[in-house]
Amino acid sequence: MKIAVDAMGGDHAPGEVVKGACEALKQFPVIEKIVLVGDETRIKPLLAEEVVDRIDILHTDEVIGMDEHPATAFRQKKQASIRLATDLVRDGVCDGIVSCGSTGAQMASAIFRLGRIKGIKRPAIAVLLPTLNGPKLLVDAGANTQVDPQNLLDFATMGAIYMQLLNHHPARVALINNGAEEEKGSDLTQAAHQTLKASSLNFIGNIEGREITEGVADVMVCDGFTGNVILKTLEGFGKNIFTLLKRDIQKHLRFKLGALLLKPAFYELKHQLDPKVVGGAPLLGVRGVSIVCHGNSDHTAVLNGIQVAKQCIEADLIAQIEEAVECEQTED
Amino acid sequence: MKIAVDAMGGDHAPGEVVKGACEALKQFPVIEKIVLVGDETRIKPLLAEEVVDRIDILHTDEVIGMDEHPATAFRQKKQASIRLATDLVRDGVCDGIVSCGSTGAQMASAIFRLGRIKGIKRPAIAVLLPTLNGPKLLVDAGANTQVDPQNLLDFATMGAIYMQLLNHHPARVALINNGAEEEKGSDLTQAAHQTLKASSLNFIGNIEGREITEGVADVMVCDGFTGNVILKTLEGFGKNIFTLLKRDIQKHLRFKLGALLLKPAFYELKHQLDPKVVGGAPLLGVRGVSIVCHGNSDHTAVLNGIQVAKQCIEADLIAQIEEAVECEQTED
Repeated sequence: MKIAVDAMGGDHAPGEVVKGACEALKQFPVIEKIVLVGDETRIKPLLAEEVVDRIDILHTDEVIGMDEHPATAFRQKKQASIRLATDLVRDGVCDGIVSCGSTGAQMASAIFRLGRIKGIKRPAIAVLLPTLNGPKLLVDAGANTQVDPQNLLDFATMGAIYMQLLNHHPARVALINNGAEEEKGSDLTQAAHQTLKASSLNFIGNIEGREITEGVADVMVCDGFTGNVILKTLEGFGKNIFTLLKRDIQKHLRFKLGALLLKPAFYELKHQLDPKVVGGAPLLGVRGVSIVCHGNSDHTAVLNGIQVAKQCIEADLIAQIEEAVECEQTED
Repeated sequence: MKIAVDAMGGDHAPGEVVKGACEALKQFPVIEKIVLVGDETRIKPLLAEEVVDRIDILHTDEVIGMDEHPATAFRQKKQASIRLATDLVRDGVCDGIVSCGSTGAQMASAIFRLGRIKGIKRPAIAVLLPTLNGPKLLVDAGANTQVDPQNLLDFATMGAIYMQLLNHHPARVALINNGAEEEKGSDLTQAAHQTLKASSLNFIGNIEGREITEGVADVMVCDGFTGNVILKTLEGFGKNIFTLLKRDIQKHLRFKLGALLLKPAFYELKHQLDPKVVGGAPLLGVRGVSIVCHGNSDHTAVLNGIQVAKQCIEADLIAQIEEAVECEQTED
């Protein structure tokens, strides 16, 4: 198994990315090689000696920044690290690719270099959210601002396969809505409810915002606008709640002492809420394993992202999705 | 000033509602009278003696439950407490109405008994969210699943007037979107961005989910589907984060001790995040002061809701909105 890693993508690239890649090689002997794509002069000094013979470097100077327009940057920067890394999968050199860079640029690279899975009109971004019952999948987390019920069914089908692959039990699928009852919602969610109900998925119905972090469903489906807002609202609140708590703690010595005693528990909680820790999640609907890690990923997150790539490759995620989509369509 | 209170609405009615109404009378001498609408035999024993002469009871047996279909229940239950309470405002007996009952039924009562403000096609639900910079207004929090850019401008205009009334400084208005840049978003948010930019409001641009609890804007505008999902996602996460923390605390004696010391700080944080505490927020766009309190309100929340009604009446919120809407339209 060979995995391409975009060494230049993300807030802490290339340092944390290279470190994470080296750790993955140490931890997973099944990974024969990692190809690091990026600035060779910056990457080389960062390599861990024990694994240096299992690392190839594909040099490039170009990188797509987080603030660039993804599709435009993808078109203009033909040598961008995410683009070259994706091409390694297209050309069969690598079995999957991992990046902490611009998700939009990664999606553009995947769509235009790997192509879509037959029957999938709209590939989607899947993200694992922290919940009371462990990480659960939100899809679409931001790729498709406007969708139709069939797109949502595709997201659900692909998400269910991925979660079954992770948890080894059939995934419960829910539709995010502004009410639990099936007649509630927008035109989109009302129609999508019926589409999902008629499918062969284990559809448990609508869920409201309140239930998202309860983890009642393995796969939570919505359009990419709503998904983006949910994801970022949770990220912001997860951070801001600690700011509010810190303010209160400063008020009394007693609180400061309590906080000192609780420090490891707070750390654990922060850790549980940290989107970085969950590691990566795959782009769903493209013809190759392409794992998105958070832009803010540290080496552990990169390691986790590479592990996700490994799992997807081992389980042959793409073939499984192709098969499921074909079944879904035959049933219609 | 006379205020009608739906004594039967909410999870803790009539007990907490009546208690909150009595406290409001003690605290605010400017309120001549409160009319409690509901079951007289249940309300009477709950009245505080000092204020009993400032309370009238309008008896009714009917109440609309939280689980009933709002519009249907409104049509069928002609004697429902929320409906009779709203009629007191329509008939000029009271200057405003406060309820902790079904928000949908309150909106239906307001629209059909008070009517819409001229120029406002879609009244909206406004909710104050806890943020790092104090409570900020989310509008629409759930009344209108599908809207157009003009509706969003109306929400923004009305929300800005309300927040200026609360904070005594011009309100900063933002549009909730899946990206900060003005070319990002759905067809709706892209068009709404231009509409808001061209208005006379203090429009600071798009905000992403991450910024919602930072409190960078006084008024955060979105469609009611998105608003409902945001509100409930925050409510759920605010609750579930304490469940996660409790689990961690149980693991060690040291943590339990720390938690004991920090108990008042946790209580304070929970309090800050509690939608009940913020008190009520007005239905915006109807021809009368109608304050929505959380269904889970205790007596303090009811007291706060009545205070909001008092503020809206004193500042003549409805006339201010009428004037602003007229100006907005003249400018076009």
